[in-house]
Amino acid sequence: MPGIGGGFHRKTGMPPGTVIYLGERAAEGVRMTLIRFDEERFEEREIASIDEALPFPDDRSVSWINIDGLHDTALIERIGELLGVHSLVLEDIVSTRQRPKLEDHESYLYVVLRMLSPAARTGEIDSEQISLLVGPRYVVSFQERPGDVFDPIRERLRQGKGRMRKTGPDFLAYALIDVIVDNYFHILETVGDRVEEMDERIVTDPDPAALHEIRALKRETIYLRKAVWPLREVVGGLERLESKLIAKTTRQYLRDVYDHTIQVIDTIEALRDMISGILDIYLSSVSNRMNEVMKVLTIIATIFIPLTFIAGIYGMNFDFMPELRVRWAYPAVWSVMGAVALAMLFYFRRKKWL
Amino acid sequence: MPGIGGGFHRKTGMPPGTVIYLGERAAEGVRMTLIRFDEERFEEREIASIDEALPFPDDRSVSWINIDGLHDTALIERIGELLGVHSLVLEDIVSTRQRPKLEDHESYLYVVLRMLSPAARTGEIDSEQISLLVGPRYVVSFQERPGDVFDPIRERLRQGKGRMRKTGPDFLAYALIDVIVDNYFHILETVGDRVEEMDERIVTDPDPAALHEIRALKRETIYLRKAVWPLREVVGGLERLESKLIAKTTRQYLRDVYDHTIQVIDTIEALRDMISGILDIYLSSVSNRMNEVMKVLTIIATIFIPLTFIAGIYGMNFDFMPELRVRWAYPAVWSVMGAVALAMLFYFRRKKWL
Amino acid sequence: MPGIGGGFHRKTGMPPGTVIYLGERAAEGVRMTLIRFDEERFEEREIASIDEALPFPDDRSVSWINIDGLHDTALIERIGELLGVHSLVLEDIVSTRQRPKLEDHESYLYVVLRMLSPAARTGEIDSEQISLLVGPRYVVSFQERPGDVFDPIRERLRQGKGRMRKTGPDFLAYALIDVIVDNYFHILETVGDRVEEMDERIVTDPDPAALHEIRALKRETIYLRKAVWPLREVVGGLERLESKLIAKTTRQYLRDVYDHTIQVIDTIEALRDMISGILDIYLSSVSNRMNEVMKVLTIIATIFIPLTFIAGIYGMNFDFMPELRVRWAYPAVWSVMGAVALAMLFYFRRKKWL
Amino acid sequence: MPGIGGGFHRKTGMPPGTVIYLGERAAEGVRMTLIRFDEERFEEREIASIDEALPFPDDRSVSWINIDGLHDTALIERIGELLGVHSLVLEDIVSTRQRPKLEDHESYLYVVLRMLSPAARTGEIDSEQISLLVGPRYVVSFQERPGDVFDPIRERLRQGKGRMRKTGPDFLAYALIDVIVDNYFHILETVGDRVEEMDERIVTDPDPAALHEIRALKRETIYLRKAVWPLREVVGGLERLESKLIAKTTRQYLRDVYDHTIQVIDTIEALRDMISGILDIYLSSVSNRMNEVMKVLTIIATIFIPLTFIAGIYGMNFDFMPELRVRWAYPAVWSVMGAVALAMLFYFRRKKWL
Amino acid sequence: MPGIGGGFHRKTGMPPGTVIYLGERAAEGVRMTLIRFDEERFEEREIASIDEALPFPDDRSVSWINIDGLHDTALIERIGELLGVHSLVLEDIVSTRQRPKLEDHESYLYVVLRMLSPAARTGEIDSEQISLLVGPRYVVSFQERPGDVFDPIRERLRQGKGRMRKTGPDFLAYALIDVIVDNYFHILETVGDRVEEMDERIVTDPDPAALHEIRALKRETIYLRKAVWPLREVVGGLERLESKLIAKTTRQYLRDVYDHTIQVIDTIEALRDMISGILDIYLSSVSNRMNEVMKVLTIIATIFIPLTFIAGIYGMNFDFMPELRVRWAYPAVWSVMGAVALAMLFYFRRKKWL
Repeated sequence: MPGIGGGFHRKTGMPPGTVIYLGERAAEGVRMTLIRFDEERFEEREIASIDEALPFPDDRSVSWINIDGLHDTALIERIGELLGVHSLVLEDIVSTRQRPKLEDHESYLYVVLRMLSPAARTGEIDSEQISLLVGPRYVVSFQERPGDVFDPIRERLRQGKGRMRKTGPDFLAYALIDVIVDNYFHILETVGDRVEEMDERIVTDPDPAALHEIRALKRETIYLRKAVWPLREVVGGLERLESKLIAKTTRQYLRDVYDHTIQVIDTIEALRDMISGILDIYLSSVSNRMNEVMKVLTIIATIFIPLTFIAGIYGMNFDFMPELRVRWAYPAVWSVMGAVALAMLFYFRRKKWL
Repeated sequence: MPGIGGGFHRKTGMPPGTVIYLGERAAEGVRMTLIRFDEERFEEREIASIDEALPFPDDRSVSWINIDGLHDTALIERIGELLGVHSLVLEDIVSTRQRPKLEDHESYLYVVLRMLSPAARTGEIDSEQISLLVGPRYVVSFQERPGDVFDPIRERLRQGKGRMRKTGPDFLAYALIDVIVDNYFHILETVGDRVEEMDERIVTDPDPAALHEIRALKRETIYLRKAVWPLREVVGGLERLESKLIAKTTRQYLRDVYDHTIQVIDTIEALRDMISGILDIYLSSVSNRMNEVMKVLTIIATIFIPLTFIAGIYGMNFDFMPELRVRWAYPAVWSVMGAVALAMLFYFRRKKWL
Repeated sequence: MPGIGGGFHRKTGMPPGTVIYLGERAAEGVRMTLIRFDEERFEEREIASIDEALPFPDDRSVSWINIDGLHDTALIERIGELLGVHSLVLEDIVSTRQRPKLEDHESYLYVVLRMLSPAARTGEIDSEQISLLVGPRYVVSFQERPGDVFDPIRERLRQGKGRMRKTGPDFLAYALIDVIVDNYFHILETVGDRVEEMDERIVTDPDPAALHEIRALKRETIYLRKAVWPLREVVGGLERLESKLIAKTTRQYLRDVYDHTIQVIDTIEALRDMISGILDIYLSSVSNRMNEVMKVLTIIATIFIPLTFIAGIYGMNFDFMPELRVRWAYPAVWSVMGAVALAMLFYFRRKKWL
Repeated sequence: MPGIGGGFHRKTGMPPGTVIYLGERAAEGVRMTLIRFDEERFEEREIASIDEALPFPDDRSVSWINIDGLHDTALIERIGELLGVHSLVLEDIVSTRQRPKLEDHESYLYVVLRMLSPAARTGEIDSEQISLLVGPRYVVSFQERPGDVFDPIRERLRQGKGRMRKTGPDFLAYALIDVIVDNYFHILETVGDRVEEMDERIVTDPDPAALHEIRALKRETIYLRKAVWPLREVVGGLERLESKLIAKTTRQYLRDVYDHTIQVIDTIEALRDMISGILDIYLSSVSNRMNEVMKVLTIIATIFIPLTFIAGIYGMNFDFMPELRVRWAYPAVWSVMGAVALAMLFYFRRKKWL
Repeated sequence: MPGIGGGFHRKTGMPPGTVIYLGERAAEGVRMTLIRFDEERFEEREIASIDEALPFPDDRSVSWINIDGLHDTALIERIGELLGVHSLVLEDIVSTRQRPKLEDHESYLYVVLRMLSPAARTGEIDSEQISLLVGPRYVVSFQERPGDVFDPIRERLRQGKGRMRKTGPDFLAYALIDVIVDNYFHILETVGDRVEEMDERIVTDPDPAALHEIRALKRETIYLRKAVWPLREVVGGLERLESKLIAKTTRQYLRDVYDHTIQVIDTIEALRDMISGILDIYLSSVSNRMNEVMKVLTIIATIFIPLTFIAGIYGMNFDFMPELRVRWAYPAVWSVMGAVALAMLFYFRRKKWL
């Protein structure tokens, strides 16, 4: 999980539109695949240069170029040049800490999304920037790292089932966004399970290790929230967008995704509520346990301290202590001690401490 | 009560519009009943196939098909085909974790609601998805499980009293929604009673078991809140909907239901306030009790510790301790001890600890 | 004060528009009074049946029918019939747990308000539903219980001073609402005084009894809030209402009432802030006192425990303890003890515990 | 500072428009001053009756009547009569607990403001109602008490510098409002300084007296907030008002005042945040100190209690305790005790308590 | 960092439009630089008087006058006179505690921003007011202190790369604002790092010094928030502004800055959430540690207090204590003591205190 304080570029003073990659420099090269399809045909191949994909055939086919890796800025600039993409957009594509957003540039749409996945090592949430350029006959998708998240889409395209082969780039873009939003549900499910488990555990076993977990859960919901709120604006904006690039039939599907983002937000807010409740319960439990500890101490101490005092009295070495000489004094002292102890116990019982 | 982190489908990567049932697979089969009525006639029968109900007679009669159980997806798809329902809607009907929503598909309305009921075993809140398709001359209602919640409606239809037999499917849909919203009041009443009881109990008897109950109440209000907020949008949207499927006379009734949902929301918010107040009071009570425990310990300890020290002094075995030989030393020590104890008591009295 | 979880009807499954009284069944019968007035004339009498009041004379006079008690549903239905009131409205009139609301039925307005008064016995807040039907030449007011809250209005009508006799039913309705809103100020003043008093007391004397009072105050503000927020919508809606039933001159007066409801809401929010602050201060005070108790215990215990240990050493009965035989050992031990005690006191002084 | 629960009138049941003074009855009489000016002329005199100021000369001069004291209701009614002011407005002028508001009565504007000043005796915030009537050629200002807050305006008018002598009553009204809003900054500065000071002090010296101060600061910000939020609406409303009484050139100045009220609100919200943070820090500090106290007690007690026990053992008087006869037993016991104490200290060191 | 309660001017009673410098009086004089450029030419020089820069050549060149230091009010007034700037604007330029705002004066725009930088000495956040006047062919920028924040812009102008030399003053203004907003990211990064570090540290090592740091972080986020929220309105307003001074092509760049301010706000809100979470965790940790301390005390005390009592019993000097004479009594007492201690340990083990 990147730092909460992060999520911004660092190019202060540089001219706007400078295309500089800010992410981790991946070891592997950039990988580009082209999928071109229409209702009858389907073509899928890896390409070495963007020029291979152009010009787009002017018929009904849709071209989907997927680019894994953003560190080859020359490539990105070349794409921008060929497709007529604004330099600010190119800059945003490689600035991998963008807030999700939607920009309508008339001849194409630019969509930034964040793809969340549990980090392999730590189990914390990892975040990757996905950029989409949606034009009249093409979709270009940019991923920071190679990943298999879009595989189900590819499979559906290969099999040619469903609407996807019959519709335009807008429907393909919808499908890509839908896959990403669906991924949020997996993350939420994991977090939700952990919250539920913690909610159970916190009353029975409020140990300090729980604090670490609560802290982590809190961090993660703050992080999720920061990622999801703008997502909602993006999907909602896409649904309402007045653009000839989005067909009317696609809008209904976008609305379906929008419903999902609302559901994600609802769930995050409920999780936040739950976590804040768990912390309250945790504090209460700690207080309760401290209270119990105090009671035990108080009961033992207040019973024995007076008794020890009595014993101390008759341990004194004064020459003239007439009681010491009396034969029944010793048992009498025992009786007094017993009475004091019983009185104390009775008092605690009345206080409901026992 | 389903998990807070839940409430979403799990079909990542599947093509949209895939009708896959996600709920528990009920043992019993799907049960379909057809009620067909107009002002004069009333017909009620169980049907084995949706085709028995179609075509809808083109006169003034209203057909209400109620379907208990959603796991027969072939059946759902058949209904969709016959009534011309969009595949995304069919997918939503069987995805039993939908957020309440309203969709206007011009030739029909699609309404998703959540029906709440106290779970038989645990007393926690159980939730069931109810879908309604409202067309020009029909209502199709989908329930996850067989239930008797719509029985009063059936009874009113049979008796033919009131407006219901004289009006269209929109009024029937209103009546179904009204019954569901009324059910929320029962849930709220139960929760409300428990909150009130807890509010009374928390000051007199703040024991750890109360924490469990507070936690459960908190969970339930979070859950209710998540269920009711979208409900309000649904009912409000229905009232304002520009659709020829909703008669003007029905709007007034919908507004009545809308008022009820607002009342439900008000009450939930007030309950949340109450519960958060109860937790504060609980923490205060625990602090108070700890304070009292500490006072008892402190009083006993601070009185007897100095006295025990004095007794300890005269228990020493030095050869030359002139006091030990003095005849009045023993009573004098008693007097000193009494004076110390009284001084302590006076001090505590002044501190208002006694 | 009715329960927080309350405020709803219970007629699940009953046809809408069923007029069933849900309040407490009053012992007394229903009492109806008719006041009819115009600029010159004034008539006031008790009536046994609503038919006595009808038909309204078609001149400039205004008829005000006040009904104390709602359990005679036949009477209510008769009024509805004669005045052409919608059955849903009649249902709401007798369902005494309505949220305040305003409904414009073109030929008449329906206004629901809640009248608050301190309960005679407990001092808690009692709530009563007031319904108003405002027609072209009449106002019908429904109260749950006989009360003298409208007496000042009657008095002003009798004396014929001010605008009231010269204006229509809208101004009379305004006057009735104004009296009810003014009543909120009395409640607020009482609550406000108690909050101020508590605010003073909480620092000097944070005893557990204060918790009961804070809890009660919190409950009451939650209750007030739930009652007042919809009131604001009602009065605001009335002011802005496009209806020929509300004269333009009356709007200015309604705006005045609206200002008052805003003031009520401001005050409630400020009270809520105060109360939540008081609870914080209370918890701080309890912590402070516990701290003080702990300090006393710690000072006494840490001074005397080491001294008692020293005394214990020389109380041992070993044969060979050379110190015991030394003449100056006893005073030397005293000196050591004094030095230890002084060192401790110095330490505490440095820690600012003394 | 008036009570939080206050801020409302008390005339329940009285006819609207009744002019009854509700404030403290000042000992002194009402003082009226008339300032009349245009670009060339300036006239300033005390007047005994409002009639002296009327009729307003119909040329370009502006008349400013300032009235100190509101208890002469006959005077107020006379002003209302001469200037054609609505009786509800007159009622509001003398009801000195109005919420700030703006009313446009076409031929004049009515503005209510609250003037804050630190109370002479207690240092708490004192509040005074200022009403302004702004007509085509006059401004009438009403103050509860004589005060010198408007002196700078008078001075500027006398000297004739700046725009004020060249413009109409709207600019004069702006200047009066500007002076009042500027006064809020002084109050805020004082409160802000106290908050900053408390913020410094709370960590080093969290004593109970700080609680009193925090409580007072909290009260004051609640009070300020209640006063300032409506002020913003008033000034904003004035700026946007469609009225021929406000010249276009004046709007720019009003916008400047509006910016100031926003700044006041920002600052109050920041102060509220700070104060709530201070209380948290205070509670943390108290917890820290308690923790420290507990550690000292625990260290002393856990070291000496076992040692005292050992000493107690060898203080027993059994006939057959062979150790007592052994020559090296006494030093051996000392060694054991030393070892126990060292083990304890080592344990505490490892726990980081020392 | 200026005080939270600050951020306002102090000129109560002064006529509006009085140009009085309120900031610290800098030792150095005011420094003015003129940069004049168009696509081909570039001129940069220091000027002694504003008159040197005027009149602006009426061709396509853009003039940027940067003024470091605001204490020479005569100079500011001279600029106002020559450029036709409203006196209220001049007043705001030198009142260095303005809230960020945007004013459209038709012939020029006035923009106030706050430039944040970490204070050299304390590491706290320092704030400087930047004012921009944007006219048809000029930008005038006012800084409180000389600084190198605009150096990258100057460098880009000198090199003539990018759009800047080809566009008008609106683009230059955009570039200046962009640099300032980018600076916020640096501040946020620093604060974010400290928050993350504290978040790690708080669980392992919750010492009182952490409280100081939390308090400082809280103050800084309150301060940042107060600075950034209006910034967003300014940039958003600039983007939407209907003014011929802002070219359509520039709007896209402004929208980019707007996205950045949203990102800044998101991050600040997330940081606030984090800090409030850290304080909760801190309190929990302190409670946990206190709990642990209490347990140690209780275990030691409750084991040894009863044992010491037993020892005390047989330290009594009664003549007739038959046990003392029994040979196996001493080992028996040891056994009893051992049994008591074991029972206690078993009890603690069962309570999970060990």
